[in-house]
Amino acid sequence: MHGIPRIGALPSGARDLISDVAGVTVGHVTLADGAIQTGVSVVLPHQRDPFLYKAPAAATVINGFGKSARLIQVRELGVLETPIALTNTFAVGAVASAQIRQAIGRHREIGRAWPTLNPLVFECNDGYLNDIQVASVTEQHYAQACASATASFEQGCVGAGRGMSCFGLKGGIGSASRLAVLRDGRRYGCGALVLANFGRLENLCVAGKPLGQWLSTHHASAGSGHAEPDKGSIITIIATDAPLDARQITRLAKRAAVALARMGSAYGHGSGDIALAFSTAYQIPHHAHEAMPALAMLHESHMDALFEACAQAVEQAIVHALWHAVSVTGRDGHRRLALVDALPQWPMLLNGK
Amino acid sequence: MHGIPRIGALPSGARDLISDVAGVTVGHVTLADGAIQTGVSVVLPHQRDPFLYKAPAAATVINGFGKSARLIQVRELGVLETPIALTNTFAVGAVASAQIRQAIGRHREIGRAWPTLNPLVFECNDGYLNDIQVASVTEQHYAQACASATASFEQGCVGAGRGMSCFGLKGGIGSASRLAVLRDGRRYGCGALVLANFGRLENLCVAGKPLGQWLSTHHASAGSGHAEPDKGSIITIIATDAPLDARQITRLAKRAAVALARMGSAYGHGSGDIALAFSTAYQIPHHAHEAMPALAMLHESHMDALFEACAQAVEQAIVHALWHAVSVTGRDGHRRLALVDALPQWPMLLNGK
Amino acid sequence: MHGIPRIGALPSGARDLISDVAGVTVGHVTLADGAIQTGVSVVLPHQRDPFLYKAPAAATVINGFGKSARLIQVRELGVLETPIALTNTFAVGAVASAQIRQAIGRHREIGRAWPTLNPLVFECNDGYLNDIQVASVTEQHYAQACASATASFEQGCVGAGRGMSCFGLKGGIGSASRLAVLRDGRRYGCGALVLANFGRLENLCVAGKPLGQWLSTHHASAGSGHAEPDKGSIITIIATDAPLDARQITRLAKRAAVALARMGSAYGHGSGDIALAFSTAYQIPHHAHEAMPALAMLHESHMDALFEACAQAVEQAIVHALWHAVSVTGRDGHRRLALVDALPQWPMLLNGK
Amino acid sequence: MHGIPRIGALPSGARDLISDVAGVTVGHVTLADGAIQTGVSVVLPHQRDPFLYKAPAAATVINGFGKSARLIQVRELGVLETPIALTNTFAVGAVASAQIRQAIGRHREIGRAWPTLNPLVFECNDGYLNDIQVASVTEQHYAQACASATASFEQGCVGAGRGMSCFGLKGGIGSASRLAVLRDGRRYGCGALVLANFGRLENLCVAGKPLGQWLSTHHASAGSGHAEPDKGSIITIIATDAPLDARQITRLAKRAAVALARMGSAYGHGSGDIALAFSTAYQIPHHAHEAMPALAMLHESHMDALFEACAQAVEQAIVHALWHAVSVTGRDGHRRLALVDALPQWPMLLNGK
Repeated sequence: MHGIPRIGALPSGARDLISDVAGVTVGHVTLADGAIQTGVSVVLPHQRDPFLYKAPAAATVINGFGKSARLIQVRELGVLETPIALTNTFAVGAVASAQIRQAIGRHREIGRAWPTLNPLVFECNDGYLNDIQVASVTEQHYAQACASATASFEQGCVGAGRGMSCFGLKGGIGSASRLAVLRDGRRYGCGALVLANFGRLENLCVAGKPLGQWLSTHHASAGSGHAEPDKGSIITIIATDAPLDARQITRLAKRAAVALARMGSAYGHGSGDIALAFSTAYQIPHHAHEAMPALAMLHESHMDALFEACAQAVEQAIVHALWHAVSVTGRDGHRRLALVDALPQWPMLLNGK
Repeated sequence: MHGIPRIGALPSGARDLISDVAGVTVGHVTLADGAIQTGVSVVLPHQRDPFLYKAPAAATVINGFGKSARLIQVRELGVLETPIALTNTFAVGAVASAQIRQAIGRHREIGRAWPTLNPLVFECNDGYLNDIQVASVTEQHYAQACASATASFEQGCVGAGRGMSCFGLKGGIGSASRLAVLRDGRRYGCGALVLANFGRLENLCVAGKPLGQWLSTHHASAGSGHAEPDKGSIITIIATDAPLDARQITRLAKRAAVALARMGSAYGHGSGDIALAFSTAYQIPHHAHEAMPALAMLHESHMDALFEACAQAVEQAIVHALWHAVSVTGRDGHRRLALVDALPQWPMLLNGK
Repeated sequence: MHGIPRIGALPSGARDLISDVAGVTVGHVTLADGAIQTGVSVVLPHQRDPFLYKAPAAATVINGFGKSARLIQVRELGVLETPIALTNTFAVGAVASAQIRQAIGRHREIGRAWPTLNPLVFECNDGYLNDIQVASVTEQHYAQACASATASFEQGCVGAGRGMSCFGLKGGIGSASRLAVLRDGRRYGCGALVLANFGRLENLCVAGKPLGQWLSTHHASAGSGHAEPDKGSIITIIATDAPLDARQITRLAKRAAVALARMGSAYGHGSGDIALAFSTAYQIPHHAHEAMPALAMLHESHMDALFEACAQAVEQAIVHALWHAVSVTGRDGHRRLALVDALPQWPMLLNGK
Repeated sequence: MHGIPRIGALPSGARDLISDVAGVTVGHVTLADGAIQTGVSVVLPHQRDPFLYKAPAAATVINGFGKSARLIQVRELGVLETPIALTNTFAVGAVASAQIRQAIGRHREIGRAWPTLNPLVFECNDGYLNDIQVASVTEQHYAQACASATASFEQGCVGAGRGMSCFGLKGGIGSASRLAVLRDGRRYGCGALVLANFGRLENLCVAGKPLGQWLSTHHASAGSGHAEPDKGSIITIIATDAPLDARQITRLAKRAAVALARMGSAYGHGSGDIALAFSTAYQIPHHAHEAMPALAMLHESHMDALFEACAQAVEQAIVHALWHAVSVTGRDGHRRLALVDALPQWPMLLNGK
């Protein structure tokens, strides 16, 4: 059995997960029962109170056919106030309400003596496998996902990734990390987590090899997504321990687009391709009486090292989402094959041809 | 008794409401019971099915300390797919779910054979008067608001405006319209509806007169908002029957900022100041097999006439929100005085001094 | 004789000029000879080498009918690399070339071993008074303007302001400053310099008073700009000594729009309304081997104090541009009256009515 | 001898050039004499007067370390007013002045009775081969380039491409086209022209094959660009005859980023990666008394076909720039090898390995 195809030449962190950036954890709640194939995933940027100590963050919209909510404030203020949540399109409202409830539970002053908080929920449409019209995701699921967050989390058809499709195959959650080595020898990590629900089969490339053409030509059975337009979406979450300000984090987030293109996407019209990045190097205190961080940001000329690390980590995370997927049957008998089931010899193909 | 102060020299439509733009209707559901002072308002851009026939639209974020949801897709695609909803900050999730439910009720294909739809909910924080931590707004309220939509709607402390504050006084819903007369004699309407929850008392200007300074100096009783930072928000909805494309509509929406500045706002840090505009001149069919509209857009050099009409309509709508407000007592005995109660002689002051 | 109308309640710096922000200087070269009524102005953000020590900066486009050059890199990297230049529309190329020549003169490595530099030239169209088709501004004029830069500079029809028109009257260069006092007692300055060439006479408001309506009704002789569309532009340069990062500086720059609206502009279609802001609190070294600044940025909740200071400083700067203007006759006998000549009693009108 | 590697499965137009979009022509002036290795290229979007009949257009900044001038107005108004010019970084001012002079020569009213015009000059830094500090490009060169514009233009080291470098090899001008076939059978062309001056050798991929790794490992002589950061830039011009409005053209332009990523770029920090697209389906008349176009725009769901065509055309254009390049020696003996000289067997490698 061959191993997972490896993207790029930069070294990975210990787990090859976003949690290689110290402090980052991920939790999932998976709902898998007949026509219900969906879930919730959360990314915790650090282990302090997320409202009192706000992670510096920024987002970019690669293609905006998406319903992810509440990026306006992230862009204006450059910070997160809650864990980052991912779920299906029609569960955004429920999960946002859960984020509010969780924060109010900790701080009764929110929305009263203090400002309101900004929930942050990303989504993809898992409606091919999941009966999205059933409101199966509840506020409790969000709380459970937060409670289960850990640095050693699962990938594949778990959490929000349960019902997702990717290049006509089974998609879901993938994660990876890369180390950026600066010219002066300093090393910073860059981790990625994707909710991969995008792409058309015939466009799929893995490590530059046109797997999708091979599959769509030779494996009609894999072809459930064959003639479909690119209606999916991909949400990318990027973490780094490099000290970056919001403008620099915006630049980093934009490099997610590199990975999508290399996998075979042209940012399809019907795809909600959104990337959010954050730094763990410092937090911004909610209260003005606490001291603001005073660390030196990265010199701009070092950004290239992070850009390469980001592009490789995101591409690897998408490959991981495909690799860890299992075949799933959902509503109305709809079925998505895992890549490993559609084409068991795919790692060999990558090495051979 | 003096009349309502009038902004600018352009003529109004028949009602001096956003519904002077033919086809536009507005509905409210008001919840006013002790600590619950909140509600839902909706603006229907036209009377066709909003998903099948999408209104061309665009939005601008003047200051982004706000939680309004789902502008990403409006910006990417330049259309609306649902009625525009307004409510309190923590009810966004419930109302978005209601928009999804309503659309699915009409079209079971949504999220299955068809793409998902993009709910669109704007919000302000009414937490001073309303116990925002109680989830008092339900999905049914949204449906009721839609069912009640009419061209002859109420202003003031109704719908989403029930619990809002404005310049330390009672705010809420206001609306107005102006007619733009082009150099070639053509006339187009521009209507505005605001959910006004912004501003500090000492900054309030009405028709250029510093009413707020007068009030904050002489009327300590009005001073509930006196030393508060500008934590509110203002949502502005703009309608026109001029044939504009999405780029031109974006330009129009940006002129809401003119009105805010003239009323005394510097777009406060803590304010979510967002404007959305749409044209009623045509709709975009959901299905590709239906013919696309082929009407001529407005020549760019005529935009100035619309810009002036928009600035005046929005400023007048804010004045109407103050004018139609009544004094309200809400949670924990919090009370906001209506301008007419804080300063009964204010129309005289505007004319005299 | 009455004094200059004063905008807002915040205190000014010692000179009520942008140079109240320590280190900022301004230079002018004025060309005034018959049909040639134009010039160059420069703002130096600090007194170090501008390429080696880059001022943190950001820009915003309020309305983009303008030809100002090279904002792309300012937005991407958040820094200035040259003095800020202002001139007429058709002189942008010559002044940009002069900026390049000046920097190369100091650093032969630029464009060779080092990256190229980003010139930064803002413009308005002075073509009513100035024969803009004559290339009267040369590279030498830029160098002269830099050499003459001082904290005690002139306002009115000088430098780039020589040929500008404003609300149908004589416009030009104006400057002002305000002090922001934070809740914790710290004080930061905010200075503004405008190149004012915008607005229609009938819309002119000064300190909330509709001077333009009065003038256009009673003074037909002032009416040269009467029925004209708003074809001008206004460039606003904002300086602060508050420690802000590029995202925060962007927020500050956007408050220039407040002042324009209060003076009577609705950001006319044909106007290039652009604002650039910078901080003097630190600089970014060009060379990666030099230490990056590590000072604490301002807590976001203090931004409101700066926003008010910015809005007032910019509005005051525009009033100063009108106040210091003199009547000028230029090409083809075109003439613009100074406000003081069109309406000598205007300060009294402001106080009286 | 093998042929040029072909990107993607979509058919090309007759010439596989941007001029396959009817009406588009391209002209070059090449300066190649010792230390002077530079030039000017122009793209004419149609053959009518570009100021009187403005081509609908939009631009996107993929990475903004660039000095291209005057995109602000393109974004605000969605049109071009001049031919599109490309040159070296320090010649932007001269070429912009030439564009102004050319337009004034045709229309003396520009900047007087009519508004000023918006020159549009894109640039890359050819300073490795060309002595960029010498002002070798003059206004006459721009006029010559326009006069020489034709549908059958040269590629490679011509015009603005003369001194450019790409992946450590010789870069320059490349062009290509693809046909988009809609679901309803309609066909639209999409053409691209690039000024390719970006990328690091070890990252170069052609048709998914890591040529750059092979070259940097085995061909030390090619390694002039080996350890260099990505300091270059790439300008992409995209033409289509599909009827698109400015918002849709913006979406199209963004797909240039796909091609860059697939060639091996992560949008390097020091790279000015900018794309401008235009439609030839209609023009906007300058004068308001002329009729505005009233054709139906493309239904949004057809955009995917154009996105794929754009991504393939831009990638093919970059491959063409490498293919048509010749080895060039410039200032101080600096030399860039053409790909065909560095690795004569490269087409075989693409097919074989």
